[in-house]
Amino acid sequence: MLIQDIIIKKRDKKELAKEEISWFIKGYSNGDIPDYQAAALLMAIFLNDMNLDELAALTDEMLHSGTVVDLSNVEGAKIDKHSTGGVGDKISIPLAPIVASCGVSVPMVSGRGLGHTGGTLDKLESIPGFNVNLPISKFRQLVGEIGVCLIGQTKDLAPADKKIYALRDATGTVPSIPLIASSIMSKKLAEGIDGLVLDVKVGTGAFMTTLEKATQLAQTLVGIGKKAGKNTAAFLTRMDDPLGKAVGNSCEIIESIEILKGRGPDDIKELTLTLAAQMLHLGSRAKSLEAGRKLAQEAINSGKALEKFEEIIIKQDGDPKVLEDYSRMPGAKHSIEIKAAENGWIREIDSTEIGMAGVLLGAGRKKVSDNIDPGVGMEILKKSGDKVAKGETLVILNYNQDKDLETAVARIKNAYKIGDRTEAKPLVYKVIQ
Amino acid sequence: MLIQDIIIKKRDKKELAKEEISWFIKGYSNGDIPDYQAAALLMAIFLNDMNLDELAALTDEMLHSGTVVDLSNVEGAKIDKHSTGGVGDKISIPLAPIVASCGVSVPMVSGRGLGHTGGTLDKLESIPGFNVNLPISKFRQLVGEIGVCLIGQTKDLAPADKKIYALRDATGTVPSIPLIASSIMSKKLAEGIDGLVLDVKVGTGAFMTTLEKATQLAQTLVGIGKKAGKNTAAFLTRMDDPLGKAVGNSCEIIESIEILKGRGPDDIKELTLTLAAQMLHLGSRAKSLEAGRKLAQEAINSGKALEKFEEIIIKQDGDPKVLEDYSRMPGAKHSIEIKAAENGWIREIDSTEIGMAGVLLGAGRKKVSDNIDPGVGMEILKKSGDKVAKGETLVILNYNQDKDLETAVARIKNAYKIGDRTEAKPLVYKVIQ
Repeated sequence: MLIQDIIIKKRDKKELAKEEISWFIKGYSNGDIPDYQAAALLMAIFLNDMNLDELAALTDEMLHSGTVVDLSNVEGAKIDKHSTGGVGDKISIPLAPIVASCGVSVPMVSGRGLGHTGGTLDKLESIPGFNVNLPISKFRQLVGEIGVCLIGQTKDLAPADKKIYALRDATGTVPSIPLIASSIMSKKLAEGIDGLVLDVKVGTGAFMTTLEKATQLAQTLVGIGKKAGKNTAAFLTRMDDPLGKAVGNSCEIIESIEILKGRGPDDIKELTLTLAAQMLHLGSRAKSLEAGRKLAQEAINSGKALEKFEEIIIKQDGDPKVLEDYSRMPGAKHSIEIKAAENGWIREIDSTEIGMAGVLLGAGRKKVSDNIDPGVGMEILKKSGDKVAKGETLVILNYNQDKDLETAVARIKNAYKIGDRTEAKPLVYKVIQ
Repeated sequence: MLIQDIIIKKRDKKELAKEEISWFIKGYSNGDIPDYQAAALLMAIFLNDMNLDELAALTDEMLHSGTVVDLSNVEGAKIDKHSTGGVGDKISIPLAPIVASCGVSVPMVSGRGLGHTGGTLDKLESIPGFNVNLPISKFRQLVGEIGVCLIGQTKDLAPADKKIYALRDATGTVPSIPLIASSIMSKKLAEGIDGLVLDVKVGTGAFMTTLEKATQLAQTLVGIGKKAGKNTAAFLTRMDDPLGKAVGNSCEIIESIEILKGRGPDDIKELTLTLAAQMLHLGSRAKSLEAGRKLAQEAINSGKALEKFEEIIIKQDGDPKVLEDYSRMPGAKHSIEIKAAENGWIREIDSTEIGMAGVLLGAGRKKVSDNIDPGVGMEILKKSGDKVAKGETLVILNYNQDKDLETAVARIKNAYKIGDRTEAKPLVYKVIQ
């Protein structure tokens, strides 16, 4: 085979054969195919798309470029959840212990925050001692022992995806639905799961800002999952407002613990139960979504889910006392209130701006090598549809150093659109199975 | 500026600014921009095109990446001709001395054969001693002294084009009209010319096989030329049959000398006079094309043109005795006649196949590093529209070694389509100015 022929085929909008895709991924992974030829092919894929057969082959080859976790030691179903990322999206943290406490295993490999969205790993690291850098052997062992483990991407999982992602970042080929979908799915399928629930975010704080694009991504993700023989379902959920009230790291762990204690904001509770129900159903622990939801709610009510989270923290070397004493996590020295400039209703919040305000103060990263400040965070007191009076507090911003404070405050203020009353949008737009 | 932003702009079908194009070419030339980012941009250009403003900027930057020949020492107009390449296309060889002998200077930088088409430089090198590798200083001097010089591309002329061409070859981005046009024009404009006549070939032996594509290329070339302030005209000419009767190297020099002696095949004579007329007109030596044609014809009749060719040969270290004694050039030891398999009329000749048959026997190159055998060649006895009887000779193939002989013979046979009589196509389809 000649890489030029493969590039020319895709350049001319033709379908690539499974063997051609496989040969490309192998050749690029081992360095036989240079970056410049891979870059030309990626741009051709970006502009001319790939169909589901091509994507299934691409994903399969990327996932087999490294270790595929063997969870045959774990009895019962192994189901994971993946979110395309939003602001205040801490759902994985209460969700994993709820589902695991109901008897469906959750082998979860998460990411770090980048850009305006937070990352599950960064949030978990607010818990003193919590170790997300466990080797695959330990991951397997913990999923077997307690039914759940939360770790970060290791270099063994889908290394071809890592190499391709770096090249995409440098060549303007990131926001491509086929390339995004195969990247997500190759990493998830490498976890050794039986099924996957996807939370595809849509709105001002999501990478996909329109329902149309998000639907396309969700369909592609579910299509790849099915082709790989996995039970896959995708929820299209609203990411206009930040999820819950807490945006940051320590504060999002606190909000997650509150959910496990049966408290916390309604939207977080609702989305957590919806996704838990789907995972329990896919994992055959619940005959219906209703039954799954009931099971999940019971796990919260009985304290089983909170106990499971305690178990996770202990097994992953964290300090379980945080569950009762939130002050054991890093906090912020100062706080400032951002107030409404006029009377009216909150019509919209640009969550990307909220997220970026947090990044400016250290809650997130501008580039991969940045350190984060886990104590920095926001309390979102007013959300879309809420009535506000001039001078009423919209957001409490907790911070440690005032570099960029003014810009951050201005961005939060600008993120709020106050005006006439509008109709509330649903939390879940649709489900794709 | 960020190269990613430029890639993304072109990826999203937006127009690049002159400054962005200039910054890219400079950065890529000096190695600041790596191949993989250039490759992604080239594929985006290939798929999303460039408008004339962008192309003018690209060409200008590529031509200024190296030496722009200063021909201010040469009085009068400096006009060159460029052909997009065909089979048996030796027009430059009689054309340059004809035009120069009429008082318009011809600073001509030519190419070598690659693929099925021959190259002017290879043909000239059939003349013992003829040196096409002169430095720019000598090129300037000869154009000043005798009004003409025929050399090869040097590393000083448009080096950015050379680097980009190599990358295009490796990344499936060669057959792109904007990229072809800017590549041709950057090299031609670096010659220090005032005007340019383009011979854009269309047909079975050309890179552009349809009139539509060729017209698009011709318009783009002329557009770039005009934007650069040069008198530019393009002829769309038929390249279904080989031009003339000779296909090879020595034999094409012989045919060219015959033209200068007032003999030779009609199609070569006609195209040479047509292009000469245009060059003399662009160079202000003839008020009209008719007057230009008359001037050119007189230069042949009087022997002035042949004398000019003798002068060229002498000044470029060649053996001028070849003009009277063709046997001083390399020849072939063997010959074989390829005969018609049936009665009828020649409906079509696939000239790419004719060219490739020559390449197989050493008349051309499969790859840049191949050596050629100047003595190998073909005499094309029958062309489109000719009547043939079964057993009549179509082509005489002159060769030196019989490796691949059978394949070459089969390809020539297959190139001929014999059947019912068809209408002859014109030699010149149209002129774009």
